[in-house]
Amino acid sequence: MLQIEEAQAMLTAQVQKIEETERVSLAEAYGRVLAEDAAARRDQPPFPRSPLDGYAVKAADVASASKESPAVLQVIGKIYAGTAFAGTVGAGQAVRLMTGAPIPEGADTVIRQEDTLAEAETVQIFASSEPYRNYCFQGEDYKAGTVLLQKGRRLNAGAIAVLSSLGAAEVSVYRKPRVAVISTGDEVLAPGTPWSPGKIYDSNRAYICARLAEAGNPPVISMHAADEGARVAEEIRKAAAQADFVITTGGVSVGEKDILHEVVRLLPAEKLFWKVRIKPGSPTLAFVYQGTPVLCLSGNPFGAIANFELLARPVLAALTGQQDWLLEKEEAILQNDFKKPAGARRFLRGCLKDGRVSVNSENQASGAVASMANCNCLIEIRPDMAGAQAGETVTVYRF
Amino acid sequence: MLQIEEAQAMLTAQVQKIEETERVSLAEAYGRVLAEDAAARRDQPPFPRSPLDGYAVKAADVASASKESPAVLQVIGKIYAGTAFAGTVGAGQAVRLMTGAPIPEGADTVIRQEDTLAEAETVQIFASSEPYRNYCFQGEDYKAGTVLLQKGRRLNAGAIAVLSSLGAAEVSVYRKPRVAVISTGDEVLAPGTPWSPGKIYDSNRAYICARLAEAGNPPVISMHAADEGARVAEEIRKAAAQADFVITTGGVSVGEKDILHEVVRLLPAEKLFWKVRIKPGSPTLAFVYQGTPVLCLSGNPFGAIANFELLARPVLAALTGQQDWLLEKEEAILQNDFKKPAGARRFLRGCLKDGRVSVNSENQASGAVASMANCNCLIEIRPDMAGAQAGETVTVYRF
Repeated sequence: MLQIEEAQAMLTAQVQKIEETERVSLAEAYGRVLAEDAAARRDQPPFPRSPLDGYAVKAADVASASKESPAVLQVIGKIYAGTAFAGTVGAGQAVRLMTGAPIPEGADTVIRQEDTLAEAETVQIFASSEPYRNYCFQGEDYKAGTVLLQKGRRLNAGAIAVLSSLGAAEVSVYRKPRVAVISTGDEVLAPGTPWSPGKIYDSNRAYICARLAEAGNPPVISMHAADEGARVAEEIRKAAAQADFVITTGGVSVGEKDILHEVVRLLPAEKLFWKVRIKPGSPTLAFVYQGTPVLCLSGNPFGAIANFELLARPVLAALTGQQDWLLEKEEAILQNDFKKPAGARRFLRGCLKDGRVSVNSENQASGAVASMANCNCLIEIRPDMAGAQAGETVTVYRF
Repeated sequence: MLQIEEAQAMLTAQVQKIEETERVSLAEAYGRVLAEDAAARRDQPPFPRSPLDGYAVKAADVASASKESPAVLQVIGKIYAGTAFAGTVGAGQAVRLMTGAPIPEGADTVIRQEDTLAEAETVQIFASSEPYRNYCFQGEDYKAGTVLLQKGRRLNAGAIAVLSSLGAAEVSVYRKPRVAVISTGDEVLAPGTPWSPGKIYDSNRAYICARLAEAGNPPVISMHAADEGARVAEEIRKAAAQADFVITTGGVSVGEKDILHEVVRLLPAEKLFWKVRIKPGSPTLAFVYQGTPVLCLSGNPFGAIANFELLARPVLAALTGQQDWLLEKEEAILQNDFKKPAGARRFLRGCLKDGRVSVNSENQASGAVASMANCNCLIEIRPDMAGAQAGETVTVYRF
């Protein structure tokens, strides 16, 4: 049976990084992946800038200024932020400046307003300054031509602030991966429909769609298909025509209604693998239909969830070139025993806090849903561990 | 001058937790805050359920079954997942079951298909079983009436899976906080407009809006207002009528164009504070206009950003009752020196990895934007630290 890493490699080998781009406004750009280098078109600041309110002067003119012996300078103008000023500050002169205003030619420092006293046409300066103190140099933040953000990076708030400072209202980003999610199983009801005996409400599809939404990438298709091979094949055909990646749940085991095997023949599709050495969810099936990878997860809720996290995320990482699609892996100290021997790598629902992880005390059965709500990681129990003891170091994958 | 914690307390004292609710579909529920306890209406599973494909039997009938000496049982029916079955399994009888099917009355275990051989009307059973092995009890996941998710919790993917399993297509959530963001400053241009001398492109508003979008809570208003007191007052009036919280940038220092002080008089509004003992961004101003808190950040980019992170987030936490609005605080080992003495608590842009944090080597000037793109935390330098030395433990706030 395949190891998880082999299954991941077989899936990601089917995938090309999405190179199509689209332009979005900065207001929509959070979390998107930049498709072009973002370079400065001008220096930032675009001019020498005053960091405070005060007077632009020549430092030499105020070299001996103090409270007791102020320098008195002629005020030749006033510059508000956002305005230009054509004049030059000469010896014995000053220009009143607001924060953010350009420092005029001739001045090499700004005396803060608190150290001055304005008079009719002059100003008293009570403090000395060195040249270029309180002076933001043109281009000190960045120079024209500098590449500030590289193609391929995800746009966080800081990056969007930088893009905005460059003056572009739109940015070129890679289009998002299009994911289709199809649940199967005649026992599975969509929430909001009436219950009848023998039925259960779906949870797998809701989980997967919420995980995609969490990543800013809600599915393009989310639907249920009844357990009939031709019907499911047709839905996968339609989904594959629109989506980069199709995920199904249910119908992958060995029973009569495990119709995904039939679907592979009906499409027909190229099977990649069936069964992975992992608990829960080992009967995971994967195939490629007309170039689109299709990952068929177990219908067992925790089997579907664990295999989504371990096998679907690498496909999304490969489609986007963004490793942050993968769960963060870390070591943690197990806080309680888990007695079941594994035989294969087993994943448990855990609660991680400050480097310590507890096996969720609620039901760990792979069919159980309730314990998902309060778990924040998967705990990996290696096959060589006879279960796991409190105090052991385990690998956890943070949600 | 106020300490940060005092300023936070003065702001949050103005805020009532939002109690208005709305119903949203599960597809839209990710990240929302649950406004009702979610209790199970029926047991889950709603019936004893088969975890695999096989035969429902009485354990007593197969107690001595083996490959060499199979038990032979009469097959009285077949149950697919999603269907009900009215019959009862008697002694010497078996029912063929698919994964997820209800286990019929009379049977107390399921023999997996791999350990059986189907014949015309009988089945050979090659393995024994204990009662209730391969048997999912009705209600073993959760019982009818159990509160599975409590009012006030944020809905992650696991919680949405649980809600979906309960059968509800919609859920009652608290409405999101409505935030308005208004930038001021005649030097500030919106991206996409032509540049002219003395101007710079906005970055503060883009940053704040991206941070709100990141939290799934984009602003209801995002606009620029020119530096004219009456104009800004009018925009704040309109914003406060719609929003729970108004954030402005610029115009809070001591210059002639620091018009937010005038705005407080014009509205008129009740001033909460002006100036906080923090670098950068100390001239932060806060007031309340007709019950709506208004936080006026410095126009200096990093001043605006640091004060947004430290002062706006607590307001959003108070409005929602969700502490996850606050930045995660942790200790880290500083990797390089920072020489500037603080005098007040100073915040730096940092890059945190594995418990080690580097002061971002790019420009730390409070007017600098470019270094925001590659920082992932704020580093706090306490006023008693004479700058900070490599090797010291510092507090960081993770983005």
